[in-house]
Amino acid sequence: MITAEVIAVGDELTSGERLDTNSQWISQRLAELGVRTLFHTTVGDELEATVRVFRAAGERADVIVVTGGLGPTADDLTREALAAAFDRPLVRDEAALSHIRSLFNRRGREMPERNVVQAMFPRGSRIIPNAHGTAPGIDLEIVRAVRSPARYFCLPGVPAEMKEMWRETVAPAILDALPGPARVIRHYCLRCFGAGESHIEQMLPDLIRRGRQPSVGITAHQATITLRVTAEGESEEACRRLMQPTLETIRRSLGDLVYGEQDEELQHVVARGLSRAGKTLAVAEWGTGGLVTHWLSDACGDHSFLGGTVIRNRNALCETLQVSRELLESRSEYSCEVAAAMAERCREQFGADLALAVGPFPPPAASAETPSETHFALATADAVFPETSPFTFHPDILQARTAKQALNALRLYLATRTPMDSLTA
Amino acid sequence: MITAEVIAVGDELTSGERLDTNSQWISQRLAELGVRTLFHTTVGDELEATVRVFRAAGERADVIVVTGGLGPTADDLTREALAAAFDRPLVRDEAALSHIRSLFNRRGREMPERNVVQAMFPRGSRIIPNAHGTAPGIDLEIVRAVRSPARYFCLPGVPAEMKEMWRETVAPAILDALPGPARVIRHYCLRCFGAGESHIEQMLPDLIRRGRQPSVGITAHQATITLRVTAEGESEEACRRLMQPTLETIRRSLGDLVYGEQDEELQHVVARGLSRAGKTLAVAEWGTGGLVTHWLSDACGDHSFLGGTVIRNRNALCETLQVSRELLESRSEYSCEVAAAMAERCREQFGADLALAVGPFPPPAASAETPSETHFALATADAVFPETSPFTFHPDILQARTAKQALNALRLYLATRTPMDSLTA
Repeated sequence: MITAEVIAVGDELTSGERLDTNSQWISQRLAELGVRTLFHTTVGDELEATVRVFRAAGERADVIVVTGGLGPTADDLTREALAAAFDRPLVRDEAALSHIRSLFNRRGREMPERNVVQAMFPRGSRIIPNAHGTAPGIDLEIVRAVRSPARYFCLPGVPAEMKEMWRETVAPAILDALPGPARVIRHYCLRCFGAGESHIEQMLPDLIRRGRQPSVGITAHQATITLRVTAEGESEEACRRLMQPTLETIRRSLGDLVYGEQDEELQHVVARGLSRAGKTLAVAEWGTGGLVTHWLSDACGDHSFLGGTVIRNRNALCETLQVSRELLESRSEYSCEVAAAMAERCREQFGADLALAVGPFPPPAASAETPSETHFALATADAVFPETSPFTFHPDILQARTAKQALNALRLYLATRTPMDSLTA
Repeated sequence: MITAEVIAVGDELTSGERLDTNSQWISQRLAELGVRTLFHTTVGDELEATVRVFRAAGERADVIVVTGGLGPTADDLTREALAAAFDRPLVRDEAALSHIRSLFNRRGREMPERNVVQAMFPRGSRIIPNAHGTAPGIDLEIVRAVRSPARYFCLPGVPAEMKEMWRETVAPAILDALPGPARVIRHYCLRCFGAGESHIEQMLPDLIRRGRQPSVGITAHQATITLRVTAEGESEEACRRLMQPTLETIRRSLGDLVYGEQDEELQHVVARGLSRAGKTLAVAEWGTGGLVTHWLSDACGDHSFLGGTVIRNRNALCETLQVSRELLESRSEYSCEVAAAMAERCREQFGADLALAVGPFPPPAASAETPSETHFALATADAVFPETSPFTFHPDILQARTAKQALNALRLYLATRTPMDSLTA
């Protein structure tokens, strides 16, 4: 199997000032091409150290992808280090230089003299074009005794430029160079909400185990569970066919717990549901800090999600939503009646077909036996559906989880147009 | 100077499935101790490769910090690789084993047999206690010819456990082992909003240049500019004294452009301003997707920030805020009159002392000469202060930048209690 090492160059990375996200992205892309990354290395802006890292990489990996160090300043040493590592002189490429000059001219500026160095390449290398930045990349093949040549790809550290150059030039070049029949790796994710990670694992008959093909991985993030199915095959199409039965098994086993695919969030599914039903929605939330409103604003069109009212104390509740003070006094704000009133009043105020209300978080329970619940409500033209959710103290994900519970209740309502079942998350 | 290499172990890192954030954190902590990180290396769960990486690190760095690979499963190879790298047998520590057993018992479980391996240590190493997880860390000193010994610290990959063990045991051990007088490095950040990065750089008389002590770095993120001052000295106190004049120079040069320190956001400064003035605030926003409301919800107490209304179309504006339809017809929603009306109505509805309104984003300008502006307004008991901001198309940061402009206007009002100057961001 073809192996890789991913190298990131820069003092700002070794010092910890900046987080390297390029190496992870590149490893993921390499995996999709069937190339296995064995090492990541980060080295500072130091010539000798970088030369050694480049040489060592060629000893222990077949494909070496380098990001960073291609700028025009004195501490940008990648091209010099690559040339020195393999005893090549740096040679100027006139076409590349022209292109860099034209990038400056296009912005009405003269090219500074220092940028000339960006048109220097180790003799024998190929140029990787950079349409939007001044640093072209370098593609260099190094002959090795006994084995196939090592292939070095040097790209700028700017993520947008690096990714475009990867897609346009590097990935096709790697695919071309791969021996034998193509092997690609593809993933597909199913997104779940409404049960915990262990619970979901138990519901999947023996799927999450080492060595299974396709494999199934499970991860949790702020109460959303993601199941990632991975298949290896001759083509993207072949991978999809391999994954299909596993995906069907998961959907059959989990039912409603699966809300979406890939990187969908609950608000995207709600947006689709509103659109399909041709309904408008407004939100009244207390405790979730405007999260539900913000997420829906991102996901929905202006004419399906009309807006929201974010409440922060009892007075605001009465003033803005005109929930009666008597109701608050008699029932307290931690009640299903108040959540229902919030939903009804919000629906009227916004003139929406539906309104979703999230009540405030209850205070800590008096004892372990006293149930703590957060109240939601969904108001339609005909009825108000109250809902509760057991309240657990995970302070760091509390807002996000509660906001998701509310969206999940709405998603299920839109999917089935029937009263919601109790939430179990 | 003492140098370091930071190593992260795990297939999930080399494959790109998970992003390594531990190495950056460790490099930052090492820098604070005056230790310079030269390399980061990530290696998969493979014994021979890990052995080589460990040995190579001891050749090129004085302090080697390793995270990951200390779990109880077959692919956790760190302790075995460290032992093999330096020809040490693995020896069981009974006290450590007892502790691991007790962690399981505390949760009402028996310790699985496989966890015994977590109590194995290379002969001659010291144990780094782990109060909350089952993997104790390893502290191993390796004699080197000619130079001082290399020091290996192996910690679990779980960030919370790793960080606690760092603070409790590793950092003190490194400080102890440092030769000569202590050298520490400290940073202090000033946070700015209201001008671009280049503009701010020009306003600072020769501060951002290589070799200056203390040094000043400048970075931009979603229209917020951060100036980071770095000083090296004998102690934290000494560093602070060194940084003081530079911080004063920056504040003097930038004036109001500096809104806060360290990792403060504008909403934190607004929260303090509201608190000091004893005023309550409500928000009406259109276009910024609930961002202003969400940020203020996070930063302010329940009784100073009362809540917000998030509007998504003209109808919602009339229905909820009761802005008159005639006004919308005559002035259009992209007008200072409508922003003013939004602020006034919001203030009345919430019963707040102050209300901040953000109008919708204007449509793309008809021509380059047609000015595009977003309108804000701040309503107080006595007056409404309309504000505009030039509108530029940076789609990916548009919402965040506009939300910050609104918060910045409010911050300046609270700071000076005078009508706001035109925003220049």
